[in-house]
Parts: sequence; structure tokens; C-alpha cells
Amino acid sequence: MTDTIIDTSVIQAENARREADLRRDYESLGERLDRRGIAIDAIKEKVAGFSVAVPSWGVGTGGTRFARFPGPGEPRDIFDKIEDCAVISQLTQATRSVSLHIPWDKADPNRLKQAASRFNLGFDAMNSNTFSDAKGQLQSYKFGSLSAADSGTRQQAIEHNLECIEIGRTIGSKALTVWIGDGSNFPGQTNFTTQFERYLASMKEVYAALPEDWRLFTEHKMYEPAFYSTVVQDWGTSYLTATELGEKAFCLVDLGHHAPNVNIEMIVARLAQFGKLGGFHFNDSKYGDDDLDAGSIDPFRLFLVFNELVDAESRYADFRPAHMLDQNHNVTDPIESLMLSAADVQRAYAQALAVDRAALVAAQDANDALAATQELRLAFRTDVEPILALARFEQGGAIDPLATYRAAGYRAKVAEIRPKVEGGTGGIV
Amino acid sequence: MTDTIIDTSVIQAENARREADLRRDYESLGERLDRRGIAIDAIKEKVAGFSVAVPSWGVGTGGTRFARFPGPGEPRDIFDKIEDCAVISQLTQATRSVSLHIPWDKADPNRLKQAASRFNLGFDAMNSNTFSDAKGQLQSYKFGSLSAADSGTRQQAIEHNLECIEIGRTIGSKALTVWIGDGSNFPGQTNFTTQFERYLASMKEVYAALPEDWRLFTEHKMYEPAFYSTVVQDWGTSYLTATELGEKAFCLVDLGHHAPNVNIEMIVARLAQFGKLGGFHFNDSKYGDDDLDAGSIDPFRLFLVFNELVDAESRYADFRPAHMLDQNHNVTDPIESLMLSAADVQRAYAQALAVDRAALVAAQDANDALAATQELRLAFRTDVEPILALARFEQGGAIDPLATYRAAGYRAKVAEIRPKVEGGTGGIV
Amino acid sequence: MTDTIIDTSVIQAENARREADLRRDYESLGERLDRRGIAIDAIKEKVAGFSVAVPSWGVGTGGTRFARFPGPGEPRDIFDKIEDCAVISQLTQATRSVSLHIPWDKADPNRLKQAASRFNLGFDAMNSNTFSDAKGQLQSYKFGSLSAADSGTRQQAIEHNLECIEIGRTIGSKALTVWIGDGSNFPGQTNFTTQFERYLASMKEVYAALPEDWRLFTEHKMYEPAFYSTVVQDWGTSYLTATELGEKAFCLVDLGHHAPNVNIEMIVARLAQFGKLGGFHFNDSKYGDDDLDAGSIDPFRLFLVFNELVDAESRYADFRPAHMLDQNHNVTDPIESLMLSAADVQRAYAQALAVDRAALVAAQDANDALAATQELRLAFRTDVEPILALARFEQGGAIDPLATYRAAGYRAKVAEIRPKVEGGTGGIV
Amino acid sequence: MTDTIIDTSVIQAENARREADLRRDYESLGERLDRRGIAIDAIKEKVAGFSVAVPSWGVGTGGTRFARFPGPGEPRDIFDKIEDCAVISQLTQATRSVSLHIPWDKADPNRLKQAASRFNLGFDAMNSNTFSDAKGQLQSYKFGSLSAADSGTRQQAIEHNLECIEIGRTIGSKALTVWIGDGSNFPGQTNFTTQFERYLASMKEVYAALPEDWRLFTEHKMYEPAFYSTVVQDWGTSYLTATELGEKAFCLVDLGHHAPNVNIEMIVARLAQFGKLGGFHFNDSKYGDDDLDAGSIDPFRLFLVFNELVDAESRYADFRPAHMLDQNHNVTDPIESLMLSAADVQRAYAQALAVDRAALVAAQDANDALAATQELRLAFRTDVEPILALARFEQGGAIDPLATYRAAGYRAKVAEIRPKVEGGTGGIV
Repeated sequence: MTDTIIDTSVIQAENARREADLRRDYESLGERLDRRGIAIDAIKEKVAGFSVAVPSWGVGTGGTRFARFPGPGEPRDIFDKIEDCAVISQLTQATRSVSLHIPWDKADPNRLKQAASRFNLGFDAMNSNTFSDAKGQLQSYKFGSLSAADSGTRQQAIEHNLECIEIGRTIGSKALTVWIGDGSNFPGQTNFTTQFERYLASMKEVYAALPEDWRLFTEHKMYEPAFYSTVVQDWGTSYLTATELGEKAFCLVDLGHHAPNVNIEMIVARLAQFGKLGGFHFNDSKYGDDDLDAGSIDPFRLFLVFNELVDAESRYADFRPAHMLDQNHNVTDPIESLMLSAADVQRAYAQALAVDRAALVAAQDANDALAATQELRLAFRTDVEPILALARFEQGGAIDPLATYRAAGYRAKVAEIRPKVEGGTGGIV
Repeated sequence: MTDTIIDTSVIQAENARREADLRRDYESLGERLDRRGIAIDAIKEKVAGFSVAVPSWGVGTGGTRFARFPGPGEPRDIFDKIEDCAVISQLTQATRSVSLHIPWDKADPNRLKQAASRFNLGFDAMNSNTFSDAKGQLQSYKFGSLSAADSGTRQQAIEHNLECIEIGRTIGSKALTVWIGDGSNFPGQTNFTTQFERYLASMKEVYAALPEDWRLFTEHKMYEPAFYSTVVQDWGTSYLTATELGEKAFCLVDLGHHAPNVNIEMIVARLAQFGKLGGFHFNDSKYGDDDLDAGSIDPFRLFLVFNELVDAESRYADFRPAHMLDQNHNVTDPIESLMLSAADVQRAYAQALAVDRAALVAAQDANDALAATQELRLAFRTDVEPILALARFEQGGAIDPLATYRAAGYRAKVAEIRPKVEGGTGGIV
Repeated sequence: MTDTIIDTSVIQAENARREADLRRDYESLGERLDRRGIAIDAIKEKVAGFSVAVPSWGVGTGGTRFARFPGPGEPRDIFDKIEDCAVISQLTQATRSVSLHIPWDKADPNRLKQAASRFNLGFDAMNSNTFSDAKGQLQSYKFGSLSAADSGTRQQAIEHNLECIEIGRTIGSKALTVWIGDGSNFPGQTNFTTQFERYLASMKEVYAALPEDWRLFTEHKMYEPAFYSTVVQDWGTSYLTATELGEKAFCLVDLGHHAPNVNIEMIVARLAQFGKLGGFHFNDSKYGDDDLDAGSIDPFRLFLVFNELVDAESRYADFRPAHMLDQNHNVTDPIESLMLSAADVQRAYAQALAVDRAALVAAQDANDALAATQELRLAFRTDVEPILALARFEQGGAIDPLATYRAAGYRAKVAEIRPKVEGGTGGIV
Repeated sequence: MTDTIIDTSVIQAENARREADLRRDYESLGERLDRRGIAIDAIKEKVAGFSVAVPSWGVGTGGTRFARFPGPGEPRDIFDKIEDCAVISQLTQATRSVSLHIPWDKADPNRLKQAASRFNLGFDAMNSNTFSDAKGQLQSYKFGSLSAADSGTRQQAIEHNLECIEIGRTIGSKALTVWIGDGSNFPGQTNFTTQFERYLASMKEVYAALPEDWRLFTEHKMYEPAFYSTVVQDWGTSYLTATELGEKAFCLVDLGHHAPNVNIEMIVARLAQFGKLGGFHFNDSKYGDDDLDAGSIDPFRLFLVFNELVDAESRYADFRPAHMLDQNHNVTDPIESLMLSAADVQRAYAQALAVDRAALVAAQDANDALAATQELRLAFRTDVEPILALARFEQGGAIDPLATYRAAGYRAKVAEIRPKVEGGTGGIV
């Protein structure tokens, strides 16, 4: 039996106050969708089956290179983090797995497995870390890791990835995500080609150790922490990497890792078309890799991404992208942000399912640009909250996760147990 | 014997005033380079062998969607344009071929050949045009060309490209450049995947007609004229296209066709590494596809591109990228801009040749970021003008092309013959 | 009595099919808003009173510097344009005035007045044009207009603006909008300071001729048609200009005239705070000044702009910004785009009115970032279409303007009368 | 008498090996400049008189939010930092003052004064820090400082600034720089107008305490650490702030704090024209606030900034901008980066002094865009290194600061004394 973190009576009490309105809203929305030939229950069913992984590091307060301002009840270790993830999962019923980060989450694998299964949580992709130096580490990653000029450093980075696979294998993960910060800060600091050759050679060693039923995700990023060039700088290089590695290698798309103005949904379509879309790191951004809550800055863009995913679902037989949130919560309670972000990802999915695809294709084929784009806008404007809420409710979650979480007083409770963390400067000094 | 457009006596007189200083400057520069172990004559020889093609449309005054302001002596047709190109070639000795644009330059191929060979000019890549409707054209390209939903429109666009190959074959061109404006202005207007499938299918028909010794260049562009999505939006899609087509297909890089902040020199390195770098459309830009004179906005970036090219020269046996200027001259005499741009492209090449590559690699291997980047800066700071000027002078060109051109009074002379052109609005109304 | 362009029986028939659903949807939405303490009728009243001007040039098909692809029934002159504007006004009841562009719309002022009043249309701000050369114009604007180095050119540009005021005065306009393309394409081409001094001096002469009850709008733009620098490049320079001129001068914000990633809603707040927000040119964009339909690319941004406007309404007594659409319709029927854009501007306004401002301020004061941003998201997610539709319906417009317009067959009818226009290249050649 | 950190015999030995070449290069350059009517000695004199301040925090290895990788010999405190600054000053003779950051550099003012005067270093602007929480601080700046909703927090931030003034007064500083990270991460988190009102009110209290002969610098930044909005987001808001405060308030321009593609040199011109240019934080960037070495990414832009400064020098009587380096050195020896950056700032100044301003103005007035921009390019292409080197040499500095610094073995020496610092994660966890 699954343990629950939030007392179910709190959830029941909160839901009881909202159920009648929810059912009325759901019915009314159902009628409006029905007028457009869209079946609301089918959407609800798909939404209910949808899950996005929570990154273990996401439940702690994040920071910038200037500072970090922790909040009350910061998780002390991966076991606290798993409990926080369980809260999110319980209330939203939309986040059934946790994504670990090694070495931050290193612990006895059996304890990890036990801790997660207690809350019926699974483990999503393993994340290796070669962008900072762990204590006692022999070689420094200051000048690169998998692509470093120094062969000892590369070997260490390879072995670290192999260890991540090993841990993941024990706890039931099925994927490894490799994101590296390697690059350069100045023109000439590295040779682009040599560096990429070294990166590919290292990745091939990691790939060779990948279990048969695993996937390897390569993730591009335009810049930061490297400020002049980054080895895997865009989806083009990510695609080349995945192609060089083999059929178990796929490209991960993080919504904040692109150049300004780039049409991300189009990249999604291209990667899916060429069989290399691995999945997503969801978040939102206005400037750089801001790691804000998914859908908080440009919700229409998130919808357009899901519009491609729904299109791809109908095109490709074995299409199963891995979805994860990857956010930095600097000014909010991380649990609150992650709950709402999971819902906002579901929201975009539900809206994309509300597109009348036959009408869309007909307008496209007729060069009726206006009618075509209206189909998308109509779906995006649909307030699908009743669908999400009913899907949560029917699975034992909260109609209103935020209000329920606050009513449960979880943060205050853990703040009593977990010691206060001092704020401090970030990376600059 | 080659005809000359500018009276050689003018060139000689202008050169005579500058030769002594030039020789002294060349000697002084040679001594400074020698101190760094760089042989000036070797650079001069490479610079002398370098040529960048001039686009026929570049010699007419360009405009924006708001307006066009023609200058005196606008070329009336391709034959006037070839004469203008001959001036550029004669004075700079750096532009030995002309790149035609069909249908703008359509004319009797034999006359074209004759007109060019009179000035010892060759023909570079042929450029097809399916981004505007030619008079009397059956199908409109309003909603796309090679990727249009309508099959008749696609067929027309394919045939136009085949015609370009046919004309090119007659006049001695060896390449076809395909740039299309196809895309969409609104989310949902087109289906990204379907549209790209249609584009690939059309391109395969064009590719099938390519003569054995030709190359096909595909050119990406982020946006404009389409403002939401573009079929070949970045180098990733361009690479996929070239790969799908075959070994005669390559990617062309236009310096103004990228997202803001993108590291273009890195794209150059990647394409070269994977055997798909076709060549360049040189220009410069600050905001979008501004089509300004090469090196006028960010000369260091142009140098860094050539730094990659020089690196690639030493790595890949059959490395022979096609170089073309592709600029829009709205406020300058196009001939003047093209002369100086050709020189600025050569300048970047000469500076890149002045890099001490052994020292660079040594610094890179030692993670000495500062020393490595200093190698590039040192080369970039070298004022290589004496090298360019002597290379021109020794081949019969002008030590100072701009002053010599102005002294020759060419613009005033053609303005007497060629009728005045009225200005007008651009595309918006 | 006002003439109608679209047969009212068509409107009535179309509305009849939709009225029952609309009333049910309005009621259901009303109930949901009521739960949040928001009165739906108050929003509807404000929406009904809202009007956005249509630019005369917007009803013709636009183009890019590469090409223009006209559609059927292109308006031949300002009188055709006024009829097209009347269609938009009749069906949407949201566009009660037309904004003229001189010299494009030059005609006998009395005829203009008559043509507009026939459809109960007023005249919004007058727009001068010194970014292209009119036929027969003495001085060219190639190198600038109000800021040109040549004093004769500046004088001509000043006089053109005075003429615009004069025409506007006759037809009942109350504002002049000055947008110039002046700038430079190359570093050094102009001296920033000298050029701005000349611009200010010219503007002061224009301002001196402004009638007492008029406003002068200065409009900034980052780039295009000038590609290195633009005289009024951002809101900072626009603010300086308005301040230097005097209390009748205000800043106009065009949503597509900013640098990538800029927070436009914040600029709106700043200009309002310092008493210089003149109004808007609404459109949307993904890359540059794309001039796409308002709300088509980033509807949340449009909402956030209106969130500031609603905030400002409550702060500043004499706050009355002028709203205009300023779009380029390259692939759609311009009338259709303008109808939907007017509705989308209203939609953003309605959503902004649905914000619970007391709750918002409370969350802000409590540093409850999540609750604060949820207030905005909740309002944005509200599908306010029933409010807009009922506001239209009650004023005699169409519940569904697009369907009704298509049912009325207006485009086909004018295409019979108005001659077909050939497509062609844009400004580049 | 001034102490020296680097043994003067090392400098003399290194200089001796380079002096002859330098004198020959200087002479040769002088001759070439003379041909263009430019006097080399006049440039050298101005360069010799130029100084850019070094920020105390710049001599320690910087980091990102992902990690920090310290190098050997990290300064332990402000006194170590002053010694490092003294090395830079001694070798480059271009950095005569240090800019302190409070509370990081807090120490007994008398000791500070003594430590600096020992090396003949002065103190530049004081920098307050309200973007991170100092240990033991009562109120947190998590939700803002000078603009925080909480009045106690604002008061604390004001008092901190007053303390900075107080310390600065004691040690001989004459300016206070206020940069705050205040803003918001989500739409709605703060009210733009209310927040700016609070900021202005706080700043007025700080300004009121400013000594008569001091200047207050306000510094804008587009984003980071706040990722949706920043209170002082651009030069427009910075200008409004300085204007509201009074005549001792000026705007500081950091080259990395702007939106992509922004024309920074134009902002420099505008601020100078309206009497509000306070000075610079020099660095370079490709993506965001990358804080790379000045001139390392876009040296032409740095030159264009100085082209405006030289223009302003001749226009405004009391023009005396404050120059400071503000860089983050993640992969280089900070001392090396700062030495070369100081030289690169001087280089841009020297190149700007090599512009033939009469010829430039003549070309501008004649609308000869090409000739005008060529004047700038000609100056920029001038390799002015001999001027900088001789200016250094004549003042007792090193002809080649980098080689001399390495020859002196300073880093190894301090690494023996200063303890090794462990690397670690940055702000994110």
C-alpha cells in the first residue's frame, strides 16, 4: 500500500468544497467542446495518463550566480526530497517519477528504491554532473569534462557517467541524461572540431555501457556556463551526437536552451520526424536559461510544443518522449511551483488535444492561413482547468492542489524538523 | 585578350602615387610578422589566389520593404551588371566570377557567356527565385513554392530550378543555390512535418537533374519573408536536407540568416567536420538579415569565420567552399561597397593566415585560455592592408580601389548612358 | 443615418444561429466569474466602449522586401479602403475610426469626411510619410528626412508634416503620428548627436503648428529601414523627444519595434507613470517588426500590456491612450485579419478586467509571488469570447465576425469591381 | 615612495629584450599615421593619462550559478586583493584605482587607505551590495532591497548605502554606484509602478546623504538575477532615475546589461548629450551578462563606444566619465585578464583618437556613407599596440605585461602563501 504524505482528510475536505462547481464546469465545458466535435472525456483520459517527472533538485530553493535565498524547510537530503516529490505527486497525480542527480543524490540504492516505492514513485532518467567539481574529485572540470583536453579528466567524466548508469540500473531507471557545460569563454580557447571529436569519443564509451532497454539523452544548450562556445550548442549538434551514437540515443529539448526568437516547436517537429526526439526539460524563460515555471512566461509556446507532440503521436508508432520539469525556484515554495507547473504542462497537452485536427489539415491544404491559425487559437483559449481538476480528483488528487497544499500546512511542518539554511552568495565570489 | 572597363592609365597613375609607401609598409609589416614566425609572402600568395563571387543583383541599389532609393547609373540589365562586375574585378582582382539570378538575369546564354568572357569573368552558382512571382507565371508562390501544398505550384518551382541548371550548364556554372522563402506567418498555417516532406521530395527531383560535376547548395534562414516559421530555418534543417539529398548537396552559410547571438563560426566548423560546408554568402548584420557590407558591423566575427576556414583547409583534403558576397546596398554606390567588401573578406582571410597555429594548439592543449585567445587577437589586430594592396597591385589591380574608382569617374559616365530610375515604395504597399 | 456595407439580413441570420449558445455561454461564464467576485456585465460594458483604429493601409495586402502577393479585390484608393474599414467596423463594432497615411490617402478632404461619416467612422491620428519618396518630390529621403544633413530636405519633411496637420484639421483628426526611418546603415555614417539635434529642431517646428487640442505621437523603432542606427531607436529616446517638445507630445508603443526579449509591458508602465504614454500600434511579432496579427504569436504578452493599461486607468485621471492596429497582411484577407485582431485586442482588455486587483495587490504586498502570478494566469485563462460576442451582438455586430463576413461574400463582390493586381518584387530590386 | 610588488629588475629585463623593436614599430606607425595627418605623440599622451579602475572582486576567480573553479593563490581578503591590483597597476600603468564592494571588502578604513597608498592606488566608486544577504543580516533581500514591499527591508538597504558612503568618505572615494537586482520572476509578482516609486523614494534618501563633491551612479541591467522584470531595466529607466535624483546623479553603462542587438554606442551618445553619462563598467559578452574580458568578443563595438567618448570630449566641457572594469574571470588568471582588458580599453581609446574627425564630419555632411564609415574602419584597423606599449614603458610599466607577469612568477609566489580554495557549486543548489 502506498503511503501518503498529506493527510487524505485534508484533501477530501478541500475537494468537498469544490466538487459541485467542478462538475458543473466540466459539464458546461463538455457541452462547448461537443459543439466543436471534441469529446471531453477522451481528453480527460489522456490527461489522466500523462505524467511528467520531477527533478530531485527542483524541490530545493534555487539561486543565481549572485545569491541564493533559501526558504523554510529546505530538504536536507535525497530522502527529504523524495518526500517533497511525494507531496507533489499525491496532490497533482501528474508526477509519478523522480529524476535523480548524481552525485547530489548519492545514497544506498536500496534505500532510494524503498523510499520512492513507499510513495509509489518511480525513477526517471539519471542525471550525471560533470559541470562542477565534487568534493575530493581528482581532476577538475574547470576546462571541460567529457570533451576536456586532458585524457584523465575525460576518463573520470566517463566513469562518472558509467556509475550513474550503474546506480540507475539498481533503482529501476531506464535512461541517462547527459548535459555538460563544456565549451569555452574566449575565441580560440578551444578548437571546436577537436573538442567535439573528444566529446563524441567519450560519449561512445558511455553509450557502449548502456543497458539494452535504456535510452541515452543528449541535451543541447546555447550558452552558460560557457560564454563563448558550448560543445552541444544547439539541436543540430545534438542531432549529430545522437546519430553518431546509435539508435538508443535521443535528443532532449529544454525550453530555455535556445537562441532568442528561435521557433522551438519547429525543432520538436524536426527531431520527431527524424526519430530523435527524446523528450523535454520543461520550464519557461524570457531572457536566457531562466528556469522559470513552465507556462509562466509564454503559455502559447508551451501549447504549440504540445501541438507538435499530439501531431507526432498520430504519426510515429513508437513515439514516447520523456517529460521532466527542470526549473529553478528562487522566489516561490518549490513544491507549489512544481505542482502548478505539472498542471500547466498537462494544460498545454489538454489544449492541444482540443484542436480539431481534421479542420486544421483542411485549412492548411486550402492555404486558408487564417482559418488554420484560428483552429489553434480556439483550442488554446479553451479553459481546460475542469478537465485537469477532474482527472486529479478521480485519481485521488486535489481539485485545487495549491489551496489544498496550503491548507495542509506541509511547509510549516517540515520547517519544524528541517534546520534553517542560511542564504549566501552564488557562484561569482 | 581581356577587355578593361577602367582605363589602365588611371589605375597606373593612382598606383604610382601609392607604390613607394606601400612597399615600405609591406616591408615593415613583413618584419613584424617575421618576428612572430609568420612569412608575409606566403600569406600574400594565398590572398592573391582567393576570389569571392559577386552577385549580379548586388550592383543595383537595393531597398527595404519601405522604400527603394536608386542612385545614378543603375544597371538596366544583366549586361550592364556584368560591366559593373568587371569594374570590381579589375580594381580588386578579388572577384573573378558573377553569380546569376534567374529570372532576373535571363538572356541568351551565348550572349551571357560572351559578355563575361570579354572581361575574363566566370559564372559562379546559379540562383533560382521562387520567392516572388515573375510576370505571367501560372501559379503564385504566395503560399510556398517547392514546399507548397498545391502540387502544381511545386512542379512549377521544380521546373524553374531545372531551367536554372540548364542555363548554368550552358554558361559554365557548376552549382545551383536554392534558397526559398517558404514557411508560414501564423502558428498552424502549415504543418511543419508535411511541409518539410514536400520540400525534400521537390528537392530530390531537382537534385536528380544535377550534372555530375555540379554541387547543390541549400541555404537556411531563420525568418523573412516568412515571419512565424521557415522551412529551412537553421543549419540543422539545412544539414538534414543536404544529407537526404546526397553527396553533391552542401550547406551554404549566409552570415545574416541566424538567430541573435548565435555562434556562427561554430556552425562553420560543424558543417566542415561533417563534410557538408558548401560555402558562404558574405555580408554583415546587426539586427536581422540586414545585408550590410561584409565586415562593416562585426569584423572580428568575419575573422573568426575565416579562422575556421583556415583550420578546415588543413584538415580536409577536398575542402573548397564557394564564396559569394550577398549584400543589399541601400545608401552607397554598390560598386564601391562590393569592392571594399571583397577586400574585407580577403582581409579576414589574411588575418586568419597570420595566426600562429602551432602556438594556438599548444595553448589550447595546456588549457591556457588567455594565451590561446591572445593568438587570435594578435592576428586580428594585424593591419594586413599592405598584403592585400600588394596582391592587388601585382595582379594589375588598384592599390586603393576606392580612390581609383572615384578618380576614374565611372559612375558619372554610366549615369550619362543609363536612364535615371525613380524611387518608390517597397513591398508593403 | 449610417449606411451599412454588409447586408444586415446576413448578420441577423448568422447571429440567429448562434444566439442561444452565446447566451448560455455568457451565463455560464458569468457564474464562474461571479465565484471569483468579478462582475461580467461590467466587463462587457467596458469592452463595448472600447475601440481600436484601423489603419487605411492595413486593408490592402502587404508585402516584404522580397515580394508582394496581392489578393482579389485589392482597394484601389482611399475610398475603397474606407469601405473595407466600414465592413470591419460593422461586424466587430470595435473599430470606430480610420487612421490615414499621407500622401497615400491624399484626396479632397470633404470627400474623405463624407465617405467616412457615411459609415459613422471617425478619423484617428494622421500619419506622415517621410520614409519613401513620393513621385515628383524635390528632395529625396534616401539619407534622412526630419534629421537629414541637408536643410532643404529637412524643410520639405517639416512641411509635409504641417500639411498632414492641415488635412487632419479639416477632416476632424486630433493627432499626428510621426514615425521616421531616419538613421544610418554603417558606423560613422552619421553623428548620433548631431542627427538627433536636427531631428529635435525639426520636430519643434512641427510641434509649434499643432492645434491646441491635438496630440503629437512620436514612435520609436529599433531598426529597419535603417540597419545600424535609428534616430528614435527606443522608448528612452522617444521619451526624451516627447519631453523636449512639450505637454502635447506623447510616445507611441508599437509592439514590434523592440529589441529581442524586451519587457514591453514594463515600458508601458514607465511611460504611463511619467505621463507620456500616447498609445499603441498593435500587432504581433516573433523576430523583428513582423507586423503579424495582434495576439497571434504571444497572446499572453498582449494581455500583460492590457494588465498595465487597466492598472493605469485606475491611477491616472486623464489617461486616454490612442489605440490603433498596425499590421501587414501578407497571406490573409486583410479584412479578416483586422476583424480578428480587433477582437483579440478587446480580448486582452477583457481578460485584464477579469483580474482580481485587490487579491493581486494583497499577494504582491505579502511577497507571495506564486499567488500573485496565479491571479494573472487565472484571468488570462478565462475564455472571454462570450463577453466579446455579446458586446458585438448588442451593438448590431456579428456574434462570429469571420463566419458572417464569409457568408456575406464581400471579398468576391469587390473582386468583381476592383481590378486584379499583379504581384511583384518588393524593395530589394 | 611607492612600493612595488613585481621586482623592477624583472620588468627591466623583459623590457630590455623588447625596447628596440618597440621603438622601431612606434616610429613606423608614427610615419603611417602622419601620412593621414594624425600625430602619434598626441595619442600616446592621452593614452598615458587614461586610467580604468579595477574592481576588488575582479582579482578573485569568478563563477557561474553552476560552479566555481578557484585557481591557485586566490586572494584571502581585501588586502590580498589590493596587492593583486597593485601588480596590475604596476605592469600596465593603466589602472590607478580600486573599486571596493561592501560588505565584501569591509575593513578598518585606515588600514584600507594605507594599503592602497602604499602602491599609490586610489579608491574609485564604492559599490553597495543589496543583491545577496550578508551573514547576520536582519531582513532578507530575497524579494527586493531598495524597492522591497517591506519598509524595514528598504530601510536596511538605504542604511547599507549610507554606510558605503561613510566608508568611502574616509578612504577618499568620490562616488557611489548603486546596482540592485530587484525585480520579479513572474508576471504580476510586483507592480512595476509601485515598485519603481519605492525605489525612487529610497534612492532619494541615499542621494540626500551624498557629499557635495560626490557623484551617484545608477546602473541599469536587463535581467539577472531577476528573470521577468528588473526595476532599472534599461537606460530609459536609469535616465529617469538620475533625473529624478538631481545633478549629482548619473547613469553607468555596463556593456553586458543590454538586450540582444542593442546599439550601445548610441545609448552612450544620448546619455552624454543629456548630461547624464556617468561612466562605464567595461567587459564583453556574446549572450547575456557574460562578464568576459573587455574587447574579447566584439572589439569593434568597444572601439565604437570610445568613438562616442572622443566625440563627447570635444563637445561637453565637464565631461569626465568614470571608467571601471567589471568582469568575471572563470577560466583565466584574473590578474592576466585584467591587465589585458585594461590594455584593450586603452586600445579602443587610442584607435578612436586615430579617427580623422574633420574628414569624418565632411563625409557625414556630404552623405558619403562609405567614406564616413571607412574613416572609422581605418582607425580601427590601426594596430596601436606600439603606442600603448611605449606609454606603459615610459611610465615604468611593462612593454609586454603578460610575458613580464609570467616571468615574475607572481602567481606561484602567492599560491605558496595563500591557501588552496576548494571548488564548489554555484547558486543553484
